[in-house]
Amino acid sequence: MTTPLHEEKVFKDPVHKYIYVQDQTIWDLINTKEFQRLRRIRQLGTCFLTFHGAEHSRFSHSLGVYEITRKIISQFERNAYVDWPKEERLLCLCAALLHDVGHGPFSHSIEKTFGTHHEQWSCRIVLGDTEVNQVLRRVSPTFPEQVAGVIAKTYTHEIVVSLVSSQLDADRMDYLLRDAYFTGVNYGTFDLERILRVMRPYQGHIVVKESGMHAVEDYLMSRYQMYWQVYFHPVTRSAEVILHKIFQRAKHLYDHNYSFRFMLPPLPSLFNQTLTVDEYYLLDEAFMQTALMQWSFEEDQTLADLCARFLQRRLFQYVTLERMDEGQVERLRVQMERLGVDPEYYLEIDFPSDLSYDVYRPGVHDEKLPILLLDAKDRLTEISRKSEIVRSISGIHMGKYHLYYPQEHILKHLSQLDPDLQKLFSK
Amino acid sequence: MTTPLHEEKVFKDPVHKYIYVQDQTIWDLINTKEFQRLRRIRQLGTCFLTFHGAEHSRFSHSLGVYEITRKIISQFERNAYVDWPKEERLLCLCAALLHDVGHGPFSHSIEKTFGTHHEQWSCRIVLGDTEVNQVLRRVSPTFPEQVAGVIAKTYTHEIVVSLVSSQLDADRMDYLLRDAYFTGVNYGTFDLERILRVMRPYQGHIVVKESGMHAVEDYLMSRYQMYWQVYFHPVTRSAEVILHKIFQRAKHLYDHNYSFRFMLPPLPSLFNQTLTVDEYYLLDEAFMQTALMQWSFEEDQTLADLCARFLQRRLFQYVTLERMDEGQVERLRVQMERLGVDPEYYLEIDFPSDLSYDVYRPGVHDEKLPILLLDAKDRLTEISRKSEIVRSISGIHMGKYHLYYPQEHILKHLSQLDPDLQKLFSK
Amino acid sequence: MTTPLHEEKVFKDPVHKYIYVQDQTIWDLINTKEFQRLRRIRQLGTCFLTFHGAEHSRFSHSLGVYEITRKIISQFERNAYVDWPKEERLLCLCAALLHDVGHGPFSHSIEKTFGTHHEQWSCRIVLGDTEVNQVLRRVSPTFPEQVAGVIAKTYTHEIVVSLVSSQLDADRMDYLLRDAYFTGVNYGTFDLERILRVMRPYQGHIVVKESGMHAVEDYLMSRYQMYWQVYFHPVTRSAEVILHKIFQRAKHLYDHNYSFRFMLPPLPSLFNQTLTVDEYYLLDEAFMQTALMQWSFEEDQTLADLCARFLQRRLFQYVTLERMDEGQVERLRVQMERLGVDPEYYLEIDFPSDLSYDVYRPGVHDEKLPILLLDAKDRLTEISRKSEIVRSISGIHMGKYHLYYPQEHILKHLSQLDPDLQKLFSK
Amino acid sequence: MTTPLHEEKVFKDPVHKYIYVQDQTIWDLINTKEFQRLRRIRQLGTCFLTFHGAEHSRFSHSLGVYEITRKIISQFERNAYVDWPKEERLLCLCAALLHDVGHGPFSHSIEKTFGTHHEQWSCRIVLGDTEVNQVLRRVSPTFPEQVAGVIAKTYTHEIVVSLVSSQLDADRMDYLLRDAYFTGVNYGTFDLERILRVMRPYQGHIVVKESGMHAVEDYLMSRYQMYWQVYFHPVTRSAEVILHKIFQRAKHLYDHNYSFRFMLPPLPSLFNQTLTVDEYYLLDEAFMQTALMQWSFEEDQTLADLCARFLQRRLFQYVTLERMDEGQVERLRVQMERLGVDPEYYLEIDFPSDLSYDVYRPGVHDEKLPILLLDAKDRLTEISRKSEIVRSISGIHMGKYHLYYPQEHILKHLSQLDPDLQKLFSK
Repeated sequence: MTTPLHEEKVFKDPVHKYIYVQDQTIWDLINTKEFQRLRRIRQLGTCFLTFHGAEHSRFSHSLGVYEITRKIISQFERNAYVDWPKEERLLCLCAALLHDVGHGPFSHSIEKTFGTHHEQWSCRIVLGDTEVNQVLRRVSPTFPEQVAGVIAKTYTHEIVVSLVSSQLDADRMDYLLRDAYFTGVNYGTFDLERILRVMRPYQGHIVVKESGMHAVEDYLMSRYQMYWQVYFHPVTRSAEVILHKIFQRAKHLYDHNYSFRFMLPPLPSLFNQTLTVDEYYLLDEAFMQTALMQWSFEEDQTLADLCARFLQRRLFQYVTLERMDEGQVERLRVQMERLGVDPEYYLEIDFPSDLSYDVYRPGVHDEKLPILLLDAKDRLTEISRKSEIVRSISGIHMGKYHLYYPQEHILKHLSQLDPDLQKLFSK
Repeated sequence: MTTPLHEEKVFKDPVHKYIYVQDQTIWDLINTKEFQRLRRIRQLGTCFLTFHGAEHSRFSHSLGVYEITRKIISQFERNAYVDWPKEERLLCLCAALLHDVGHGPFSHSIEKTFGTHHEQWSCRIVLGDTEVNQVLRRVSPTFPEQVAGVIAKTYTHEIVVSLVSSQLDADRMDYLLRDAYFTGVNYGTFDLERILRVMRPYQGHIVVKESGMHAVEDYLMSRYQMYWQVYFHPVTRSAEVILHKIFQRAKHLYDHNYSFRFMLPPLPSLFNQTLTVDEYYLLDEAFMQTALMQWSFEEDQTLADLCARFLQRRLFQYVTLERMDEGQVERLRVQMERLGVDPEYYLEIDFPSDLSYDVYRPGVHDEKLPILLLDAKDRLTEISRKSEIVRSISGIHMGKYHLYYPQEHILKHLSQLDPDLQKLFSK
Repeated sequence: MTTPLHEEKVFKDPVHKYIYVQDQTIWDLINTKEFQRLRRIRQLGTCFLTFHGAEHSRFSHSLGVYEITRKIISQFERNAYVDWPKEERLLCLCAALLHDVGHGPFSHSIEKTFGTHHEQWSCRIVLGDTEVNQVLRRVSPTFPEQVAGVIAKTYTHEIVVSLVSSQLDADRMDYLLRDAYFTGVNYGTFDLERILRVMRPYQGHIVVKESGMHAVEDYLMSRYQMYWQVYFHPVTRSAEVILHKIFQRAKHLYDHNYSFRFMLPPLPSLFNQTLTVDEYYLLDEAFMQTALMQWSFEEDQTLADLCARFLQRRLFQYVTLERMDEGQVERLRVQMERLGVDPEYYLEIDFPSDLSYDVYRPGVHDEKLPILLLDAKDRLTEISRKSEIVRSISGIHMGKYHLYYPQEHILKHLSQLDPDLQKLFSK
Repeated sequence: MTTPLHEEKVFKDPVHKYIYVQDQTIWDLINTKEFQRLRRIRQLGTCFLTFHGAEHSRFSHSLGVYEITRKIISQFERNAYVDWPKEERLLCLCAALLHDVGHGPFSHSIEKTFGTHHEQWSCRIVLGDTEVNQVLRRVSPTFPEQVAGVIAKTYTHEIVVSLVSSQLDADRMDYLLRDAYFTGVNYGTFDLERILRVMRPYQGHIVVKESGMHAVEDYLMSRYQMYWQVYFHPVTRSAEVILHKIFQRAKHLYDHNYSFRFMLPPLPSLFNQTLTVDEYYLLDEAFMQTALMQWSFEEDQTLADLCARFLQRRLFQYVTLERMDEGQVERLRVQMERLGVDPEYYLEIDFPSDLSYDVYRPGVHDEKLPILLLDAKDRLTEISRKSEIVRSISGIHMGKYHLYYPQEHILKHLSQLDPDLQKLFSK
């Protein structure tokens, strides 16, 4: 059971103007220490090194996802749509608010190195011995399981899952608007109010009135542009590469019993992959940056150098490869090694790819729920069948291969590389 | 000597759209480790606990101050104003960029407790053995001293100092716009382009054409509103109070040889007030937040509790006092002590005040350079003599006294307080 | 009786994003020919000659006033305030929508010359044999009288009148935001949502929670700035002066039986002050501009010249007078006449004044309802007693005298004027 | 010859913030009566009947096109690109400012009925006995011909023509931003500053650096969306249909010697297609609306009814046709006629189409200059070869057929139509 707040509370938000809290449960969840921890996790990881405005936290994004979900439901209730299961309101709001509560610092690099997964952590926090769990259990003993089910996309009512996680969900809508606002680019803007107005609950799905097709195209184009202009920006990727190398090096040293000058808990558990929920709470971005700073004074030169590079933004340079030439890369590795530059930590080939919008492929694992258009005769059609624009951005989009390397090392030794490699680096 | 960049470089900025870098010296300064460190210092300290969008760094603000200064100078040069000393261009730009380089984490509380001062640190970084100093010395051996002079406001040319530090300087103009943008309030907006267009170099001063008076009024009103709505917001102040109590408690423990579980360098030097420039580099907000997190597990219950409160945003509650009643406060202290709640760390009276716009009072110490209007007959008049609006917001503005306290402690014991105090807390 | 629309309708609006229509009566009113006529009346009269973006119509403003009123009432209903008379909802909405329906083209100049009054015309249209009246009568036979009463401010419930007409009414809030948007200045912006959130119905008044005082100050400052920067801009006034002279000349000619090449109905009735409601419908801005165009080919040189000036934006030049010197003006008149330039039509002294915010002066005629603050102890205080800012902009604000004249005529004869007048025109 | 203005002049503009005028010639052109006339021509014709904010004039758009051209050239000059022909600056600016000076009221409908063409009129005004021509001739005797050549796209330097008229010209860039601003939709927004930064003069063309491809995609998508969401909106088209029917009916009556109660000059010349430049000046939107108003009282019921419909926004209803069925339409015509509803004036099939972006097809008539990407190796590629997005929106885009008809007439007689037609109208 939840109770409405005596008086609606608001948060001032640059994206949605205000965020409205009307339920005691939502208010209590925001005030848990696990949710407050999201203030110490940046929404866009290393992106602030490319777009200096992108310093916003997962805290503000999570509130935004909640607010969009609240607006959608409020529209459904105002119009009294019969296909909307009114009793799921609080579940949707809680799942929207908490879906990212398990995010850690620099999620991509950490997850890649240590095999953690933020969605699993969200569920562990919801189900574990946490303040979040206590608040949820006050609604009902099984409520935490329901919330975790929505986050894990195993909850039986698709309509609830799709509000939080689908091709047109509150999560995506908030992050596009928010990331556009804070980076300062205007690719991510689309007409949120219009989209909310054309969404309908229909036979267990969230669908979109066909008359809103162009608004959805615009939203999908925003997403496409944000991926290529912001999220996959090569400078951001370069910082990701360095971070990954740092964790890889630190793990290597840890596994070889290197004696760190800074190895405070919960680092050992992170390295051993034995983190508890309590330890996970400690692992925020402030802690991780402090580790990087301390490690920049380690005796191990590779770790120290990589950490200093990250903190001082002396990132790797990159060249764009028209195509992947494994032989060429192998030669480069060999020659770098000969010159005393360890390719294990100073060379990376990166290949961004995104599924801007997936058509519906039933049965395919990890399928995102598609966008369905509802026409005047109540027929549903998957949007890419009607929109040439959507078809053109559907499916896997290939970026280009980028080769990342430390410019000053390569420049110093350029004449010692073979001619083909010299040419590669001398554009 | 500086050289122009072969190709102008830009930073995407949400406030100014783009920030343009045209000089090698500026580019090099931005890439120093001391300047990059500003990415790890929030512009608005604890304000993000009230306005969750306010997570922007001093890095972005410093770039903004530089950009506004660049625009002002560019306008002066385009119009070929004879009173503009063209040779001071690079000095102005460097001082604008670097004026905040000495800011540390949570400046207000740290400065209050440990007697540091960010302006002095800016000068120490400019003059010390730093990357910043090396870049500046490449311009000329005396250039670092000149830059430090402008920051310390001792440089002889008032016109240079006033661009960076006066009642209408690039610093204020950027922070009002930026803080408004990131908090999401719209009090801070004013017509920057208009103000830039009416600024003139004139006989050693920066003055404003009288026809621009209303635009300046609007700017001063923005400042007034931002102070009362954002900077002095009681929730922000509550967080400041707790931070100050934390540092006060930690210092007390340190002075009494308490054995901290976390006392990594440069903390001891901070406590001993012997920080070197090298150590200062380590003291960023990530480090300070990590200290707070670690201290939240200290055995000292006061320190641990205060730190947890800050991190989990369980701030002190406040009541507004119509006037200061010292006797009442003293009684409260005594009664709190009796109840086992140490008033030294759990009670604070706060009294915000601001000088929104000071009229010119020659000879008064720490005088900010006033805003002078230039009329059609080339006469200068201080703005408050012409504008009723400016007069109404001039001088010291009194806020109200707020009394901060931990709500749950007081509520628990409310019936044990004397009736007058019960009344105080029961509104 | 009104019925809710089967499906809510929306208008895309640049200021409020969307305008929501939920009642059949509102929908029907918008579709009357009298309301559609507002599309052919510019909101800001001659202001587009100064700010070229200011071409928006009273149609869009009227929708905006309706929308703000709708939002206020919706907030009152959502919070179930007991002091809100729910049964007045439709009356408020209709009066908000229709309060400007009687505006004619270039209202100020026409009203000044011909003694019409837009508020009276609004009432005549509401009460007369019109489509508007038919729609209103469908609600109830007395509903037109009620709507007219609110517009005329004679309706007995102050709370209804004050939503549409007071110091903080939907009319002012919309026009400040709208005029700022279309002119492109940003003086007129304030936090509408914040103000709506702090408004309360209270004992027959609309009041504002004291915690919202700064937001109201900001709104009043916006108004102050818009008056001086936009509405009283001397170029706009210059165009008004010319328009007034045109109508004055045309009336003079009409009264002297001049034979106009263009004197289509309803012009004769306008000149005779016998306009009927049916004729008034014809009198839109397109018609009036056509008259000006046709008159620019009249044989009467004064009328033709003034009309051509207006259409081709060859406005009068102006000088600012420090103070009014009647003797000087009289001398100017005499000397102009001697030079063959008729001062009756080619000279004007203009003196703008505004009551930015009037304090409450009970009993004073045409008193605007003041802004009352409601404090935590349910006491009401008029805002200027608490806010120094409001006091500083209260009362009559004096602009400066401007003297308008045709530059080329004066320049040609400058040497023939007396030395004092030469000096006046030669700054 | 032109001279720089002593002091730069500015216009406040909501889209570009300020518009800067630096040349006497530009200033003088703006002040001609032919250019001021553009204030009385709406930019978007009948679109304000769908989007009530779209009341902006061709005057503001023309200033905007000038300003964007000025910014592009200023960037070229600042970077001292050798491929930029500096001597063409003033020609570009004048052509940009004047390219729309020949637009008349409701251009589409009038041009369709009377065979006028706005581009030809622009040239006639530039070359005729006009104030515009006088100002241009002061630059040089052949300057008017040059300006007309650029407008007519016959000027020999492609680079000059392409600034004003190509797939990525100042005209399109301004109208997308401006129409988006005034309608309030946000489809039309794109990063103008970014696009300006990646434009380059190169071997006689204006090209775009390949790194700016995504920004150009975003611009083309904006254009695509604006066409379908705004310019081709069926309600706007419905108003166009009615206007066209009005002119068709009036011409029919005129050709049959109907005696109009309102047939002021220059209407007869318009009907006879003998308009002179002097007469064209009179033909503004105010005049045309006045004609519509007067005609709404004509004895001819068809003309009167159509005019009243337009002024009172009682537009035709529409049904969307999946495909064109000529037999069905013919049957409808016959049955309407039988019911006394003249299909000539009360029925229309409309089929909007747009070339969002044409690929380069050399030799094809009326070819728009394509967008060329310049890669790092100085190779030029037409953009659709590199961008899947551009390919997907290239070529002719088909809209749907819409059938427009007067709802009340059809509804009244619905039962008398054949079953197939009844079905058509009863969705």
